[in-house]
Amino acid sequence: MKAILLSVSPDQKGIVEKIAHFVGSHGGNITNTSQHEDGGVFISRVEFELENFDITKKNIPVEFEKVAKQIKARFEIFFSDQIPKVCIMASKEDHCLIDLILRQKTGELNMKIACVISNHDELRKISEKENIPFFFIPIIENDPTYEKKQLDIIKKAKVEIIVLAKYMRILSPNFLKKVGVPIINIHHSFLPDFAGANPYKRAYLRGVKMLGATAHYVTDELDGGPIIEQGVTKVTHTDNLVDFIRKGRDTEKTVLSNALRLHLNHRVIMYNNKTAIFY
Amino acid sequence: MKAILLSVSPDQKGIVEKIAHFVGSHGGNITNTSQHEDGGVFISRVEFELENFDITKKNIPVEFEKVAKQIKARFEIFFSDQIPKVCIMASKEDHCLIDLILRQKTGELNMKIACVISNHDELRKISEKENIPFFFIPIIENDPTYEKKQLDIIKKAKVEIIVLAKYMRILSPNFLKKVGVPIINIHHSFLPDFAGANPYKRAYLRGVKMLGATAHYVTDELDGGPIIEQGVTKVTHTDNLVDFIRKGRDTEKTVLSNALRLHLNHRVIMYNNKTAIFY
Amino acid sequence: MKAILLSVSPDQKGIVEKIAHFVGSHGGNITNTSQHEDGGVFISRVEFELENFDITKKNIPVEFEKVAKQIKARFEIFFSDQIPKVCIMASKEDHCLIDLILRQKTGELNMKIACVISNHDELRKISEKENIPFFFIPIIENDPTYEKKQLDIIKKAKVEIIVLAKYMRILSPNFLKKVGVPIINIHHSFLPDFAGANPYKRAYLRGVKMLGATAHYVTDELDGGPIIEQGVTKVTHTDNLVDFIRKGRDTEKTVLSNALRLHLNHRVIMYNNKTAIFY
Amino acid sequence: MKAILLSVSPDQKGIVEKIAHFVGSHGGNITNTSQHEDGGVFISRVEFELENFDITKKNIPVEFEKVAKQIKARFEIFFSDQIPKVCIMASKEDHCLIDLILRQKTGELNMKIACVISNHDELRKISEKENIPFFFIPIIENDPTYEKKQLDIIKKAKVEIIVLAKYMRILSPNFLKKVGVPIINIHHSFLPDFAGANPYKRAYLRGVKMLGATAHYVTDELDGGPIIEQGVTKVTHTDNLVDFIRKGRDTEKTVLSNALRLHLNHRVIMYNNKTAIFY
Repeated sequence: MKAILLSVSPDQKGIVEKIAHFVGSHGGNITNTSQHEDGGVFISRVEFELENFDITKKNIPVEFEKVAKQIKARFEIFFSDQIPKVCIMASKEDHCLIDLILRQKTGELNMKIACVISNHDELRKISEKENIPFFFIPIIENDPTYEKKQLDIIKKAKVEIIVLAKYMRILSPNFLKKVGVPIINIHHSFLPDFAGANPYKRAYLRGVKMLGATAHYVTDELDGGPIIEQGVTKVTHTDNLVDFIRKGRDTEKTVLSNALRLHLNHRVIMYNNKTAIFY
Repeated sequence: MKAILLSVSPDQKGIVEKIAHFVGSHGGNITNTSQHEDGGVFISRVEFELENFDITKKNIPVEFEKVAKQIKARFEIFFSDQIPKVCIMASKEDHCLIDLILRQKTGELNMKIACVISNHDELRKISEKENIPFFFIPIIENDPTYEKKQLDIIKKAKVEIIVLAKYMRILSPNFLKKVGVPIINIHHSFLPDFAGANPYKRAYLRGVKMLGATAHYVTDELDGGPIIEQGVTKVTHTDNLVDFIRKGRDTEKTVLSNALRLHLNHRVIMYNNKTAIFY
Repeated sequence: MKAILLSVSPDQKGIVEKIAHFVGSHGGNITNTSQHEDGGVFISRVEFELENFDITKKNIPVEFEKVAKQIKARFEIFFSDQIPKVCIMASKEDHCLIDLILRQKTGELNMKIACVISNHDELRKISEKENIPFFFIPIIENDPTYEKKQLDIIKKAKVEIIVLAKYMRILSPNFLKKVGVPIINIHHSFLPDFAGANPYKRAYLRGVKMLGATAHYVTDELDGGPIIEQGVTKVTHTDNLVDFIRKGRDTEKTVLSNALRLHLNHRVIMYNNKTAIFY
Repeated sequence: MKAILLSVSPDQKGIVEKIAHFVGSHGGNITNTSQHEDGGVFISRVEFELENFDITKKNIPVEFEKVAKQIKARFEIFFSDQIPKVCIMASKEDHCLIDLILRQKTGELNMKIACVISNHDELRKISEKENIPFFFIPIIENDPTYEKKQLDIIKKAKVEIIVLAKYMRILSPNFLKKVGVPIINIHHSFLPDFAGANPYKRAYLRGVKMLGATAHYVTDELDGGPIIEQGVTKVTHTDNLVDFIRKGRDTEKTVLSNALRLHLNHRVIMYNNKTAIFY
């Protein structure tokens, strides 16, 4: 069993040694590190074996807090036997949802899908066939109670990460403030390219030769959050709009599942509205 | 020796047969065709051997004009033994110019570089070392005589295609109207992404995971002309701005030379502000 | 509705015109052609609209036979409203089978999965959940009756194409001779690289930086049939054997479904133990 | 100014801390680490700033030797202001040599090309135009004196790395034993695919859909040394053998320069006949 320790701190001498000393002095064995200084910020990912570690899992964050204070770090600790609980939010399109379910089943995505929340009822069958609780919460303009319902479900299910798998609504600042867990969105273009609606039609009319997709964390700024993963696929003049959409969707689901896998494997750290990815 | 016949016409029955009949009835042998209907437009590329062809090269366009009238086509005919004359326009950056020269020398780009025109004097040495006439034409605001000088050189050199190899100025509507030959530009982003200035800095600050480059024909609309080729390269959080620029430049020159090769091999047809590419 | 006419003939003058004349003289409208001469062989794909065509679908092959005789062509004619019947053969691994089912459901693959044949019983549940007849036919060495059973199922289901979706047995020359339909296989390497068993382990030990997969038609020569599609994915030293297998499988299923889509869309012609692909 | 410390040791607790303590206790600031355990081997790359470091550059290896002994590591220390001296060996093909020279000039490759050694005289002009000493050393079968000449040049020029830029001869075990510096070769295929002669012709006849190239360190085993980088490019049935060679060469030079840049930036560690690459 392994622990993964992510931290971000102002750059300064001795960070690596302090973290390594913490692990070593308690009997841990470091098996992987990736650390990097960028613009005065020191980002660190350290993986270590817990066999013979003399602090209980529960107490590790408490104990590491002392080191963190010294180096002014914010940090998170994860364990390789934890299976994160995920809430998937989607609208009508099913390709990303199906892909995520499939990859969870084959073991590629280490997660438990705690629930699916949708503003439509179309995806119920897919979800319930897999015994995933499905919540149809219609959106009523000017009535924020739907948001409360969403948040209640998320809290109750103890969700650790939300995935917007083609959820075609904008989350309100109030929702983002209250939700308390990271949210990953898949955007149907090579951001900041074609931000907004109908990207494939616009890409088709523009005659582009490549379609892109971008997975990013959601922040207050629409389509402006830290990018995790981007991918592209080639298109030609013999591809019509239907082909653009098909190829685009294929790219979307690949990029989303790659981004989610990186997140679930604790290989992503956010800083300065960017991400460091430890592939 | 081969002829390449490119044509664009309104879609209608019988186009393929009429073109094939023209070639066959004069003793030509078709070795490759790529034809496609898109939105009521029929795009055609036909390659045929000229051995035993009973019309002289000079007269082929005259004779084909009769077919073209019937099918309301605009067309161009090229011959495999023609070596197009190219004018390269550049400013200070040398990576694209050097790459184009190199690929011309190795035979990858079937062209003669007739001249280099620059608004700076930095690239003189590179050009003259290769015996390419270099024209330093400074740009004087509000004095359009520099544009006349550019056009005079281009006309005199009987240039058939202009390549903007990091020419960092906008060509005026007047220039575009008078120049009379196609112009290919390399844009330092995945258009329409990051159109405008400083794309690498903006991409770096945005924390993108891929850099793009786009080669396109120049039209009146800035960065809005038909796209020929796009390419991408991966970047990570360990790449700093200098790395972004290096990787971006590498992508730029690859994309530009690919686009130019497609054009020089008569594999590009423009229609509806897009391109059909016959790879 | 459209017809797709694939043909292969010795190169000679007039092929394009003869085919175009056949289509046009019967009232058809050609919407796409791709034709190419390679080593004395002329390969042709012509797509045309059947509206107003004055020969019935059933009679088109009969009538075209006359043209084919003139140009010594072998040919096939397909119609865009035909949905090919496919037999999937697989062993124990489910990733390719699941992917094919999923892409059939989303409409990406235009096919009907007529049956699944396996030498194991593991994939029964996946198949039957989708109402696909599943046949568990164990392989008994030195008893060729299992082969007869396979062929009987294939004949009875009027299968037009067989897909080996990780079928880990070699098909006998007898089977290949009798089956009468094309067979597409996915090979877990960048052929001819790592032909044979345990490719991922051998790739891992060799320390490669990219994994490949190859989809090809099956012929008498093991792993030696015409290649349809190849794909690669990057690996690094932090990928262990389990990662190699996961990444390899992802590449396998993508390459297989791409190859199958090309085949189902009648975009592949075999000649000289190679393929021409009309993307 | 920075130091880069590469080390390989048997896995054990405390390595990271010991290395970090060495750096920190002498006043260094770590700006990047990448460390990984694979099969009982611990591979480490640590980058640190030398400002305020209290050991002279010359003495750092001497002092670190004490740490290395404790953790049984073999190690190398490089400095960011060092410019490695490179010997390029080539035969007649010029594409890789030209590309390396170009990238050295643009600053992409941080190196000094100390000399070019060739078994032919064709590349003299290219080398001497850039003021690079060129040595034409013909190979005389059964007369090993040419090898002595090669080694003398290499020793005299104090070369730190040899690049085989399409050097079409096999280096003898004696040469490899005596040369004392790493050698990077570019192989014209996706190794172990098409090892040996005429790979493009064989790939063309086989009808592959992708061409590969592999850069690797040279060892006693022909084409069997640790792989540094691999790349691919797509080919289609319209590419003839000349196109295969052109596309293949483009891939070769890109892969070779990428591999060399990784090596020159001290981002490659060899272990277990593989490489760890710290991108």
